[in-house]
Amino acid sequence: MQADGEFDLIARYFKRPSPDRMLGVGDDCALMSLSTGCELAVSTDMLVEGRHFLPDADPAALGHKALAVNLSDLAAMGARPLACTLALSLPAVDHAWLAAFSEGFHALSRESHCPLVGGDTTRGMSGIVLSVTVLGEVRRSHALRRDAARVGDDVWISGTLGGADLALRLVLGQLPPDPERLRATRPLLDRPTPRLKLGRYLAGVAHAAIDVSDGLLQDLGHVLQASHCGAELWMDALPAHPALAGLDESLRRDALLAGGDAYELCFTARPLRREQIQALGRQLNVPVARVGTLVRGQGVRVLDGDGQAVPLVRRGFDHFSEPCGGIA
Amino acid sequence: MQADGEFDLIARYFKRPSPDRMLGVGDDCALMSLSTGCELAVSTDMLVEGRHFLPDADPAALGHKALAVNLSDLAAMGARPLACTLALSLPAVDHAWLAAFSEGFHALSRESHCPLVGGDTTRGMSGIVLSVTVLGEVRRSHALRRDAARVGDDVWISGTLGGADLALRLVLGQLPPDPERLRATRPLLDRPTPRLKLGRYLAGVAHAAIDVSDGLLQDLGHVLQASHCGAELWMDALPAHPALAGLDESLRRDALLAGGDAYELCFTARPLRREQIQALGRQLNVPVARVGTLVRGQGVRVLDGDGQAVPLVRRGFDHFSEPCGGIA
Repeated sequence: MQADGEFDLIARYFKRPSPDRMLGVGDDCALMSLSTGCELAVSTDMLVEGRHFLPDADPAALGHKALAVNLSDLAAMGARPLACTLALSLPAVDHAWLAAFSEGFHALSRESHCPLVGGDTTRGMSGIVLSVTVLGEVRRSHALRRDAARVGDDVWISGTLGGADLALRLVLGQLPPDPERLRATRPLLDRPTPRLKLGRYLAGVAHAAIDVSDGLLQDLGHVLQASHCGAELWMDALPAHPALAGLDESLRRDALLAGGDAYELCFTARPLRREQIQALGRQLNVPVARVGTLVRGQGVRVLDGDGQAVPLVRRGFDHFSEPCGGIA
Repeated sequence: MQADGEFDLIARYFKRPSPDRMLGVGDDCALMSLSTGCELAVSTDMLVEGRHFLPDADPAALGHKALAVNLSDLAAMGARPLACTLALSLPAVDHAWLAAFSEGFHALSRESHCPLVGGDTTRGMSGIVLSVTVLGEVRRSHALRRDAARVGDDVWISGTLGGADLALRLVLGQLPPDPERLRATRPLLDRPTPRLKLGRYLAGVAHAAIDVSDGLLQDLGHVLQASHCGAELWMDALPAHPALAGLDESLRRDALLAGGDAYELCFTARPLRREQIQALGRQLNVPVARVGTLVRGQGVRVLDGDGQAVPLVRRGFDHFSEPCGGIA
């Protein structure tokens, strides 16, 4: 027997009873069925220590976030979670860390009905690296594709923006210590809530959607590029997190327009869907704000209350050009 | 524009035209359809520099191997490749490396009809880490599950064993330099061929299958454990790679029984399937050897030509207890 071998780690920390109609962790592949008339949706993300999270990151929060950021991609597609896989490279076997990490991961996995069906654990030569792949299903031709936005569509945002970005700046010491604001925003950074239900209900109602992970301007930019149109956003309509109140205006603007890690949905829909979308937000208890409109051309113009263009600096987050962020 | 940003790397090196009925790299998720009456098969593997490959590994071979080891899991399930995703953490942007790696990856991706549909590229703090997830489809209830082996089944091996293990020992300097043997075996280590066609044809014919990645005894052991039976293997029937001829007997035995990286299929089938399986091997031009039988009890007994038990030492490869191996 291998005391701390690869197989024991998977069995000990990651194996759970298999859901119906599904082979769990342990075979060459996991097997599963799709519902009739559905397409498969797949997304992969990798989280690297020192880049996406700090070495002393709370492991339970990290387990949650590793899955949450991938589920957020399913949400942005309007897909229902089906299953996930996890690959994990660790510098050493740390049982307390693994217990907390797997608990954080599995809690969200259970809550979102997204069972872990495959895993690979290995010992790396340096920091922790995680890779999660999620599988989901969406009714044929109902997916919220990036290239489906149309000129004349409203632009909508779920929840609020800027909270997680504020928390990150406080954690990184880019702002003076502010325990009250940190307390109010830190959960948004550490344990984001993927908007799965909203995404599923929007499938067939909205045109396009994307999750705000790298900043609104950058993420909406991907939709515009894929759909060959431009956007006007109304600065005053952007739903700011309450903790942003009283902050310096340029900082506030930056957090709203370029702040990452929000994991809210930015989606576009025809104006005749307004009432339906507002009703959906009330039904799901998720705030939805209409923040702009799609126009001919390309790129985003952000307008202030007087209809004047707001100057833009930072456009978003790029993992190859910016420093470490995320869970501290 | 980000000069060497995350998005450019994906677009530059990994984007290919999307196959029919499939959204390619670039949306929140990739979307695809399954054939009617099929189940989805999913597998994930992570490769870590210094653990699974050396820092000076040939990038084209590494790109091939990263996908090959995952396709081998689909083969062992009897599944047809559908698509794959790749997550890649790099210490720095090295265009020559990326060009060669992506070419190696895509060449096998094309050949095996397994398009890359999702990717994530990030800058890590240290060595290269790759994570590949493959998706495949298999006819409902035809999958070659590990728990489907039955007492009385024949045990079969495709191809030959021991070649990649010999190459690895030569590369790591565990054996005296032997250019001829290295030339004969190195391609097996660097560019393994997943037995996809064989696996697909065996679905519905064989009972259980596994790919020999960590050594025959260890991998067959997983089948036996899942199927609650034991096995007798005939040492003289094991298909040895020709380069093993003339080696010390204990070394030869070790390479055959415990050598990793073979990526051949070990499968079990009822004796009445013998002619069908032999014919299949001829048809696909893949050698298949009948090497043992499944018995009541547990574990593997290896018998020599006189029916005497062969002493066993190393049982296989475990990434948490053994040193770096793989592509040099």
